[in-house]
Amino acid sequence: MMKPRTPFVLWFTGLSGSGKSTLADKIAAYLSEKGFDFERLDGDTLRGVFPSTGFNRTERDEHIQRVGFMAGLLEKHGVIVLASFISPYRQARDFVRKRCRNFIEVYVKASLAACEARDVKGLYKKARAGQIREFTGIDDPYEEPNHPELVIDTDDESVEQSARRIIDAIQKFL
Amino acid sequence: MMKPRTPFVLWFTGLSGSGKSTLADKIAAYLSEKGFDFERLDGDTLRGVFPSTGFNRTERDEHIQRVGFMAGLLEKHGVIVLASFISPYRQARDFVRKRCRNFIEVYVKASLAACEARDVKGLYKKARAGQIREFTGIDDPYEEPNHPELVIDTDDESVEQSARRIIDAIQKFL
Repeated sequence: MMKPRTPFVLWFTGLSGSGKSTLADKIAAYLSEKGFDFERLDGDTLRGVFPSTGFNRTERDEHIQRVGFMAGLLEKHGVIVLASFISPYRQARDFVRKRCRNFIEVYVKASLAACEARDVKGLYKKARAGQIREFTGIDDPYEEPNHPELVIDTDDESVEQSARRIIDAIQKFL
Repeated sequence: MMKPRTPFVLWFTGLSGSGKSTLADKIAAYLSEKGFDFERLDGDTLRGVFPSTGFNRTERDEHIQRVGFMAGLLEKHGVIVLASFISPYRQARDFVRKRCRNFIEVYVKASLAACEARDVKGLYKKARAGQIREFTGIDDPYEEPNHPELVIDTDDESVEQSARRIIDAIQKFL
């Protein structure tokens, strides 16, 4: 496994269904092909390991901060981190930024309408029906990044175009 | 930084004041001198980063499991992990064991009387006075490991003797 010249944390944030995981997986495939040592951290996977994690602000923040701390440690030891989490709160994302050396915040921007129209996991439908509470974009806020390193507009751009832009942006670290 | 032949997680468990951190620091110094890439995770440090972590069973378990997950990831990427946590519950420690490939549970065994007599941080005094609740050994249980890879009896053994035994035990991985 190859170490990059400069390890970094690629942090995908955005609404549920915006395309975070899809994009992170694309970058993972690229890094894998190039032989780089990386770790893939994903919201759904982590919540699967820690099912008691709730969705109120305190619990979300604690969760994201814990993941961010972990990302920072992996980066410190030369591992590239690809993290995809809704991470709706600015404060928690900024905590993560401070724990990392090279933090690349990728705002995966898609309109709520587009995400809801896709509704791959059927979660928006449940949220609208009141079967899920504290759902980001519906009854819980999403705080847009103020100064993200990258903005990916998945309403207008194909996955391939978006992935290409991210791959271009990380070349200087590899 | 050198990678070991086989990465591993050295997990120190035991009462507050049993000598976990002191021992882990000794091993850290040894690995550092030998040029190995390792990470030191410590209960006090982690609780400093995540001050809202409480002391009831649910919160302790969640905390230890999160740390254990992180230890497992670091190990996976070739980093030796030295973790010192009271980690009083068997179930949480077993969760960590399952997340790691080479988990070495070091039971730092010291009598409550000895730990209380040392009381380096003055915590036992506070716990006896009822100023701290849910204190392991006083009003919260410590579940001894059933099959620890190593037992270190710090009542009878010097720090140097204990460290020597641990260093001998990890040679096969280095």
